[in-house]
Amino acid sequence: MIARALLPDLPAYNALEELAKQLASASLQGLFEADPQRAETFTASAAGLHLDYSKQLLTRGARAALLQLAEQAGVQQGIADLFDGVRVNNTEGRPALHTLLRASSAGGQEDRFREVVTARSRMQTMAERLHRGEHTGYSGTTITDVVNIGIGGSDLGPRLVTQALKPFHGRVRCHYVSNVDPADLQDTLATLNPAATAFIICSKSFRTEETLANGLAARDWMLHAGATTTELDRHFLAVTTNLQAARDFGIPEANCLPMWDWVGGRYSVWSAVGLSCAIAVGWERFSEFLAGAEAMDQHFRHSEPGENLPLLMSLLEIWYCNFFGAGNHVVLPYDHSLQRLPDFLQQLTMESNGKRVSNSGELLHYTTAPVLWGSAGTMGQHSFHQLLHQGTLLCPVDFILPLTTHTSEQQQHRILVANCLAQSRTLMVGRSLEQARQALLRRGLDDEAAATLASHLVMPGNRPSSVITMASLNPGTLGALLALYEHRTYCSGLLWGINSFDQWGVELGKEISTDILGRLTDGIGADDTMDAATEHLIERWRDATR
Amino acid sequence: MIARALLPDLPAYNALEELAKQLASASLQGLFEADPQRAETFTASAAGLHLDYSKQLLTRGARAALLQLAEQAGVQQGIADLFDGVRVNNTEGRPALHTLLRASSAGGQEDRFREVVTARSRMQTMAERLHRGEHTGYSGTTITDVVNIGIGGSDLGPRLVTQALKPFHGRVRCHYVSNVDPADLQDTLATLNPAATAFIICSKSFRTEETLANGLAARDWMLHAGATTTELDRHFLAVTTNLQAARDFGIPEANCLPMWDWVGGRYSVWSAVGLSCAIAVGWERFSEFLAGAEAMDQHFRHSEPGENLPLLMSLLEIWYCNFFGAGNHVVLPYDHSLQRLPDFLQQLTMESNGKRVSNSGELLHYTTAPVLWGSAGTMGQHSFHQLLHQGTLLCPVDFILPLTTHTSEQQQHRILVANCLAQSRTLMVGRSLEQARQALLRRGLDDEAAATLASHLVMPGNRPSSVITMASLNPGTLGALLALYEHRTYCSGLLWGINSFDQWGVELGKEISTDILGRLTDGIGADDTMDAATEHLIERWRDATR
Repeated sequence: MIARALLPDLPAYNALEELAKQLASASLQGLFEADPQRAETFTASAAGLHLDYSKQLLTRGARAALLQLAEQAGVQQGIADLFDGVRVNNTEGRPALHTLLRASSAGGQEDRFREVVTARSRMQTMAERLHRGEHTGYSGTTITDVVNIGIGGSDLGPRLVTQALKPFHGRVRCHYVSNVDPADLQDTLATLNPAATAFIICSKSFRTEETLANGLAARDWMLHAGATTTELDRHFLAVTTNLQAARDFGIPEANCLPMWDWVGGRYSVWSAVGLSCAIAVGWERFSEFLAGAEAMDQHFRHSEPGENLPLLMSLLEIWYCNFFGAGNHVVLPYDHSLQRLPDFLQQLTMESNGKRVSNSGELLHYTTAPVLWGSAGTMGQHSFHQLLHQGTLLCPVDFILPLTTHTSEQQQHRILVANCLAQSRTLMVGRSLEQARQALLRRGLDDEAAATLASHLVMPGNRPSSVITMASLNPGTLGALLALYEHRTYCSGLLWGINSFDQWGVELGKEISTDILGRLTDGIGADDTMDAATEHLIERWRDATR
Repeated sequence: MIARALLPDLPAYNALEELAKQLASASLQGLFEADPQRAETFTASAAGLHLDYSKQLLTRGARAALLQLAEQAGVQQGIADLFDGVRVNNTEGRPALHTLLRASSAGGQEDRFREVVTARSRMQTMAERLHRGEHTGYSGTTITDVVNIGIGGSDLGPRLVTQALKPFHGRVRCHYVSNVDPADLQDTLATLNPAATAFIICSKSFRTEETLANGLAARDWMLHAGATTTELDRHFLAVTTNLQAARDFGIPEANCLPMWDWVGGRYSVWSAVGLSCAIAVGWERFSEFLAGAEAMDQHFRHSEPGENLPLLMSLLEIWYCNFFGAGNHVVLPYDHSLQRLPDFLQQLTMESNGKRVSNSGELLHYTTAPVLWGSAGTMGQHSFHQLLHQGTLLCPVDFILPLTTHTSEQQQHRILVANCLAQSRTLMVGRSLEQARQALLRRGLDDEAAATLASHLVMPGNRPSSVITMASLNPGTLGALLALYEHRTYCSGLLWGINSFDQWGVELGKEISTDILGRLTDGIGADDTMDAATEHLIERWRDATR
């Protein structure tokens, strides 16, 4: 890994600062007037997705300067490195080859691809057996419910994909348990029949505290229901690299599917981590999901920078974070089945790019990953959209809109579409004082009342948003959408000069948690270095549980 | 409403700016060393909740200055005004008397209180009938499932409360449908038996687009299942002020419970909007929920400012937003049943305080409501906590921790507790370069490798968090918790000088949506003022649905 120049040292940086100053007070509607081609020119398409970024605070000049910045940061080389298996995860000495998991050819990674194909084939066999209802439990009952036990990347991806593809589900219901709070598993099990339930224990290391605790509780539940230890084979599958630990748990190798150290958890839904999804929708649909992502990979690798969706979206992220001071990014899917998308993207973007040192360890003096948040539209309109329209913070928005519905309710879906387009337009156009006054007069207020109230109705407008549309949300477009955000995240990492594939910041908390747990269970691990606040909180816990 | 001095004009403001500069580089552990009483002194308790804010970037001096700021902003008078029914919602000419909904005495609001008591009594009768299984549907079957159809405040509050009180549920299952996306309702109905299902249509105006669309679809479903129009009485209840519109829908007055214009949607879970919760947990538990909130109200109204939980938490919000530049606030409930709390708080805080003009209409030149976000612990630890620990943004955190579990899994709950305390401690203590290097050497890395990698493991620490604990999560402590955040929101509104009870920013989007819907359905509403981007998106929708 060659250390690249950091963001402010790139030649295009200063020009962009100037452009940002100009555009900070620009009128978006004025930009549309000045450039009649804007609505076509500021769009790009790939893999069934269409990105309209014409309502962003951009001119052709600013876009060109951002593309120069990408060039100067070596983004094209970085993209090639990703696919070529270069150790882009330099702090862990590994490549990041999640793209290989959905590839239809080896692309120079013959050995690894052979492993992927073998695993894919075993996964297909398992998934099809369960999907077709051919897998039976200890009493001979067909398995109808599958519980995925995992956390982080072993949970958020498959949970999202299964929910998003609900119209494609077969007979098996998939459930997801992640939280170490015992209520999570217990609430799920309360509705299930042990004889018809299978569990997938998803943990790369097979050492994840939450997953093991829930896995052991699930095993107890199954044994308590009458399964014998040997019959557990029919009910427990694992996705892990640690076959020995899985065996110790009681899961034989034949029930284990592999993960690889060259795939990070948050990029792993394309591997056997997606087993529950494949069980839910069947192998053909799961293959379409992989193919959609591969189509985005091809686009990302081979398209011109100015047409490259992940790169363009990444440049917008850099633009607002580093030139306009935005500390957050909003994702609003106008599709109920994508309601978990913000949760998934929180891990993808914030665990990947929530870093404060460069990949060569240098302390950074600029903003990296913003806070990503959002919810399924139209629900946010009755909640936090007030702040989007009239708050004091810059909140760039991605609207995501499948243009058709899988339900029969066409008119109701039209309302959804209209609301999505209206929110994006409203953020841009805003409402002037005079427009607000006129609106109040039309409602029958007198001159004085209208004049007094009008300023409360003013909306500044010129608030940026993109609209990502697709003809329909299906396995292929879903795969493309997730791959789009993966690659956007990687590009931003390249531009910020950070390693998007490690997560050293989560380790210390685990260590300290182990110390505190020792204190809670039997006083072991007590030392005089714990702070007074933690001591007091432990004391409160003791009082409450005494 | 008398316009108060705006935040930067308050006398304490400049001193606070100086204090913030000093504390920005302070060591939290150093503050603990300098003040051995810190772990006791920076705490406060009320209504079963305990707030530990000792790990905040505060000294006794800074706290005193913040309390001065509150005094200068007239917060005490503002609190009295709230309870006394003063028209604190000045732009709509109304008081904000959500506290009256949970009051056990009139407190000077005799007329309104009489209405509240009458409505409460009718609500109790309805709730008990359903809770006890005495309410039957068109075929004589007992109602076992209740679907609340509402959005925003008519959804987020009851949805949260019902989920949070799961250990207290009786036989009736409650479901929540809010999104206009038809998939939301259809997914819910797919699992239900019409003969045993009742709906609550929750809409103050009975004109909410999403709620009406879903309500009509639910009615069709019921009629299609075989209920006659007159039998719908047994299946549809309403919470609304618009009795005529409810009647037109087919819901007789006897099935309607009232709302009042002096209660905002996001403050309404204490009213009949909470009917589904009362059905789920029974009236006794729902009364405890109200009583818990009332206990917090009493504390808020009568306690010393320096002991006042909502005020202290509000001052911390102001402190970080206006003196440290924080644009976000994180809420992490370490309890799976509180996983919807961030969603609820997003509406409460961002719809209330996401404003850019003062209550007298003056444009504000300082930050108001931050972006509120979070998730249930420990799930975030495997997702976005990387950014909390090593990102470049200031993200103040509230940890919320019930100290005991309703499940039998004590050891698993201890893991949850240990993780919560560990995350708060980790944010404070961080890890130095030398500590990181030593940790790597202990893992067997050689000197050079450890030196190279160490900077990636460094965590700056001194990142602020509070821990709110309670002996257990039950109706009373839940009521107190929600009231705490309500009053915190109100105090911040007072300090920012804004009206926390209107939401003028959501109107224009609705108007524009109506225009666009006309275009989508039959071309009506076309005018030449729509922007080119919206025109192109409408065209894409036409292509996809053709």
